[in-house]
This record gives sequence, structure tokens and C-alpha cells, in this order.
Amino acid sequence: MSVADIIRRRRSCRAYLEDPVSREAVERVLEAARLAPSACNQQPWRFAVVTDVAWRREIIEHGFRMGIPMRWALKAPVLIVVGMKRSLIVHRAAVKLTKIDYPWIDIGIAGEHLVLQAEEMGLGTCWIGWVKPRRVRSIIGWPKDIRPAAVITLGWPENPDDPPGPRPRKELEEIVTWLPTEPGKSG
Amino acid sequence: MSVADIIRRRRSCRAYLEDPVSREAVERVLEAARLAPSACNQQPWRFAVVTDVAWRREIIEHGFRMGIPMRWALKAPVLIVVGMKRSLIVHRAAVKLTKIDYPWIDIGIAGEHLVLQAEEMGLGTCWIGWVKPRRVRSIIGWPKDIRPAAVITLGWPENPDDPPGPRPRKELEEIVTWLPTEPGKSG
Repeated sequence: MSVADIIRRRRSCRAYLEDPVSREAVERVLEAARLAPSACNQQPWRFAVVTDVAWRREIIEHGFRMGIPMRWALKAPVLIVVGMKRSLIVHRAAVKLTKIDYPWIDIGIAGEHLVLQAEEMGLGTCWIGWVKPRRVRSIIGWPKDIRPAAVITLGWPENPDDPPGPRPRKELEEIVTWLPTEPGKSG
Repeated sequence: MSVADIIRRRRSCRAYLEDPVSREAVERVLEAARLAPSACNQQPWRFAVVTDVAWRREIIEHGFRMGIPMRWALKAPVLIVVGMKRSLIVHRAAVKLTKIDYPWIDIGIAGEHLVLQAEEMGLGTCWIGWVKPRRVRSIIGWPKDIRPAAVITLGWPENPDDPPGPRPRKELEEIVTWLPTEPGKSG
């Protein structure tokens, strides 16, 4: 299947079978993330792979700032915590000068490599934000200089053959400006 | 070609033919970006497509905080400026509570959809950071609530048949922690 097909088919998966995902499969999705580009090749991404059910429960139940419990996430056999390790020089200088925090962009790039690779393998994923960084860091045992940013659930979808659900998105015209504007058209 | 192949083959392309890229091709890569997932489906990404040579020169020569001029980037027939439009409620609350700036992650996700789609079409891309947001915004004419974050060059690679160059990356062991740690192994 082409990249275009994979991107069109991908949905956030919130219903998983309890079947385990092999270590080899997890390593394949991590390998896709590893090859991502990043600002000044700093590779600020770090990943923690959590398969043990008690640890997963700990993260899902206590690691997020959400009012509602995410029961569906408890069923995902693998949680991949995505963390960011900031480079003291490159990253801090950039955010000071430009007010753009490039390592977060890099986290998005690498995490989405992982997501698209998983989709190609028939695995479901869902990015979950709103983590409590300190809580999650202490569960994982990461040092202070790695900030947990998001969790990606990973597992075999409960209903892989269902047609993909709706995906509300802004139209291209709402998000794209063409320069120079063609005569008679607004940007 | 599979997603895995595309990811393995992708390199930042810094040598372009001057051949133009069709509007249809540009729309295809933008469509891939449009379908990306984002925190609370806020879709904070905005894109400006710049094909006119004078405008491109203006952005490349004056839009970046880099000491060295990026002559190679002048040859790319298309610049796609990636901007971020912050949602007042969702995004500001999240960054305040979690110190994680989710819309930047979303920008990375969407921009990389664009990059991988381009790679599949045989087009080269290169993410460029260190933009001067105000300068680029005023060149494009974006309103104040859209912050230019990066530029992605797009064009036909000068040497598409060359084998991909080296890509130094940390090993998986350096970026991945497995939990629970297997007995006798460090995380």
C-alpha cells in the first residue's frame, strides 16, 4: 500500500484486541521513528515501551490530566511513551531567538513515522496528549532531562476490517495560502 | 514502495532541478498534511505555497536567522512555509498545565506527512528551521495569529538515482527504554 493510502486509512484506534505485539514488531515501528529528520540532527526523541499490564494501568490511570478515565487505553497491549530530551545549546538558543520550539516539532515527526509504520503493519495507534510529565517520568524512571510529551497506544485493532470512520478536517482552502495569489482569487 | 522503504530512502534534499512542480502535485502533498491527526483535532497547521522566484528569494535571503546563505534553497522551485495557528483555549490551557506545547508536535506530524508523500512521488524536500517568524509572516501576509515555524523546500532532486547518502542516527538502544527491564539488562 502506498504512503497516500496509509495516510488516508489511518485513524486513531481506540479499540484493541488483547493479543500481544511481538518485540520484533515494536522494534520495527521504533526503527521508523529513529530514522526521522530533526533540527540540526539533534534527535531529541526518547521512547519508553511499556507492555506490563500493571505499569500500563499506572500510566493510564495516573499519568494524564484528563477528567474522564480512558478505559479503552487500558486494553492496548503496548504503550509507547514519547519523551523529549532538550539539547542545552541548540534547542535553548533556537527557542530564545525564534520563539519556536523545534524539538517539539521533531517529536511530532518521529512519532508520526512510528504511527504510519504501524498502520502499514496493520497495527492501530492513538496519540494521547495531556500527560503529567513528572508523574510519567517517575513511573518510567527517566532522568530529569527527558520530558514525557505524549503516549502512543499500539496494538491490533478490534475491528480491522471495518471501513475507516469519519475524519473531520478543514478543507485545503482553509489552511493553504498560495503566493503569489492568482489574479482574481483571494489567497 | 512501502512506508518503511520511503522512510528508509528519505533524505533532506539540498540539490534541486529548476523544473517546476505542478499545482496538482503540490496539492497532493498538502492533502497528505491535511489528513494528519492533531491534539483535540485542532488542526493548527497553515501552509503558504511560494513559487514565484522573487518571493522565494525574499524568504530565503531575509527570512532566516542563519549566518550562512542557503544558496541551494534558492533553486528549489517551491517553498512551503508551515505556520501554526494557536487555539486560544485548548492550546494555551495545555501548555500552561503540562508545559508541553502540543500544536508544535502537530506541526511536525502534518509537515512530515507532506514530506513522506513527496518522497513517494519522487520529490525532494528539506525542513528548514530558524525562521524569523515576524519577517516571514510579513512577506506572506499572514495575520498575527499565525506563526511561521519552518519552511519545507520542494522540488525534483538533481540526482534522483544516486544512492541515498549517509544518515547518522543514534542506535535504538540509545533512545529506547523497555519496561519492565528484562532481568540482567539495563533499561
